Amino acid sequence: MADPLDMSTLRHGTDLLKRGFARMQQGGVIMDVVTPEQAAVAEDAGAVSVMALERVPSDIRADGGVARMSHPDLIQGIIDCTSIPVMAKARIGHTEEARILESMGVDMVDESEVLTPADPFYHINKSDFTIPFVCGCTNLGEATRRIFEGAAMMRTKGEAGTGNVVSAIQHARLVAGEIEWLQQASDLEFEGAVEDVTDGFMRLESMSPLIDYELISTPFGDLNTLSDGVRDVLEEVRKMGRLPVVTFSAGGIATPADAALMMQTGMDGIFVGSGIFKSEDPTTTAEAIVMATAHFEDPSKITEASAMMATPMPGLEIDTLEVRMDQRGN
Amino acid sequence: MADPLDMSTLRHGTDLLKRGFARMQQGGVIMDVVTPEQAAVAEDAGAVSVMALERVPSDIRADGGVARMSHPDLIQGIIDCTSIPVMAKARIGHTEEARILESMGVDMVDESEVLTPADPFYHINKSDFTIPFVCGCTNLGEATRRIFEGAAMMRTKGEAGTGNVVSAIQHARLVAGEIEWLQQASDLEFEGAVEDVTDGFMRLESMSPLIDYELISTPFGDLNTLSDGVRDVLEEVRKMGRLPVVTFSAGGIATPADAALMMQTGMDGIFVGSGIFKSEDPTTTAEAIVMATAHFEDPSKITEASAMMATPMPGLEIDTLEVRMDQRGN
Repeated sequence: MADPLDMSTLRHGTDLLKRGFARMQQGGVIMDVVTPEQAAVAEDAGAVSVMALERVPSDIRADGGVARMSHPDLIQGIIDCTSIPVMAKARIGHTEEARILESMGVDMVDESEVLTPADPFYHINKSDFTIPFVCGCTNLGEATRRIFEGAAMMRTKGEAGTGNVVSAIQHARLVAGEIEWLQQASDLEFEGAVEDVTDGFMRLESMSPLIDYELISTPFGDLNTLSDGVRDVLEEVRKMGRLPVVTFSAGGIATPADAALMMQTGMDGIFVGSGIFKSEDPTTTAEAIVMATAHFEDPSKITEASAMMATPMPGLEIDTLEVRMDQRGN
Repeated sequence: MADPLDMSTLRHGTDLLKRGFARMQQGGVIMDVVTPEQAAVAEDAGAVSVMALERVPSDIRADGGVARMSHPDLIQGIIDCTSIPVMAKARIGHTEEARILESMGVDMVDESEVLTPADPFYHINKSDFTIPFVCGCTNLGEATRRIFEGAAMMRTKGEAGTGNVVSAIQHARLVAGEIEWLQQASDLEFEGAVEDVTDGFMRLESMSPLIDYELISTPFGDLNTLSDGVRDVLEEVRKMGRLPVVTFSAGGIATPADAALMMQTGMDGIFVGSGIFKSEDPTTTAEAIVMATAHFEDPSKITEASAMMATPMPGLEIDTLEVRMDQRGN
């Protein structure tokens, strides 16, 4: 497998730094925290970063309604007491929430479907920012659009707040399967994929009887720019046999075995949201999941990590959910 | 971008004054208030106008049933104690509610989908009034019809009373996309748009098996008058690259970041309905939203405004709504 660290062709100062920061996370666990105390638990357990937010996804799901960027004071409180990087979430397409996080000195913005999307058509133009972004994906087309838009890191989407790993596996396998297909596709099939993925930018046009999408632009440029950009990313994917940015899994990971499973599925690391602080003994859960992630190829270590655990977070059946967060913003 | 203040071609006394009043609102925040005390809070916070009404949209939504013009005593009470302009809402097509508001000395009528529409076919003939009107739109056709009917100001529609900004973004982007298309459209496509927008006036005809719409008139004239008027407005739009009247955003704006986002999307200002007085600390919310709107290009100011906030109004998922107000009267 090609090395996502090969950054020789990237511009210095922007893409290089952004993807370099993402690369520093590789092999690690990023944990959702809602207080400085939780951030300390995460840091002590060996998390590579924390995600500062007001409510973990399972609480957002239970509360319903609109979930927005967390209050700056909460994020600042966690930044002030933490020595590992601090990430925070902005709503999909909410450029101004991202500007606030950038101006506060957050280390990475998660443009996240766990919050309520702000723009039904477009994601944030991440190339306009100096701060790196991570975005979610359920398939290769979604990942390609996000990377073209400037995402420095991807996470295959699971269903956040459920403690149910099935959706994380579903989308990790879908992305991997599409990459495998792409590598064997004919040039004609490859161009078909370019067109198909580019069409994903054209939602606005589908809502107007007037608009001819060949005539209008998007925040990321006109049709030709989009098509060329998509082709570049897909060519990179085809050459590397993987996404060209560090790719984590997020959503539904609740046990050390879940963490190891996602790593075995080819992920570079994992996000754990509700899984830590909705479990019976968060300190031990945090340590056990870090251990299983780091030693995912060693069954005895995963067994040891599993044996450390008290009760994991309770989980939810995907079929019973009112809101499918993983389907947002695709 | 062309200047909506260029009023050299408008008649003195009516369109000039009406659009001039609307222009005075530019860059500002118009706030829904239900008591003189709330009007004082809005004025102190720097609102450019207040919208006097009995219930904010989130209460109208929660109560259900028919929402009508507010009681004249309530509106008069707010006029009497306020030194900034006072607006009030009439039902779509309810010419008599608008006459009452005009005779009371209200400064602008909002022909609003937040109230229950009174006429399923026609909006108020706003050219018959000396008072200026603001109307909502979800797309360019709707905006063009309202401007032809005499609206001096537009607001792209969000979904009022939800605290969810996604619908406001949707319609602001749709109007902008259609304007961009119009500027590049061929003459044939342009005439197609004129016909399409004109057809939007012909709802009455579509409900009768007898009527041939080429033979009957509307409150705004016969088919030729409508078609010529629509063409005039669309030509102005094509020339200016924007709507020819001041255009605000309204509906679902709940945070300083939301306000800045709408300004970044090209809006001239914002209406905040439930977002102020359904928040935890309305006085501070009002100040924070005014600050973010005025300084929407300065991330540090938006951050400062966001940090001032207590808890914003709770929000609603669009998919869970019983009534889509933004689809009324289009």
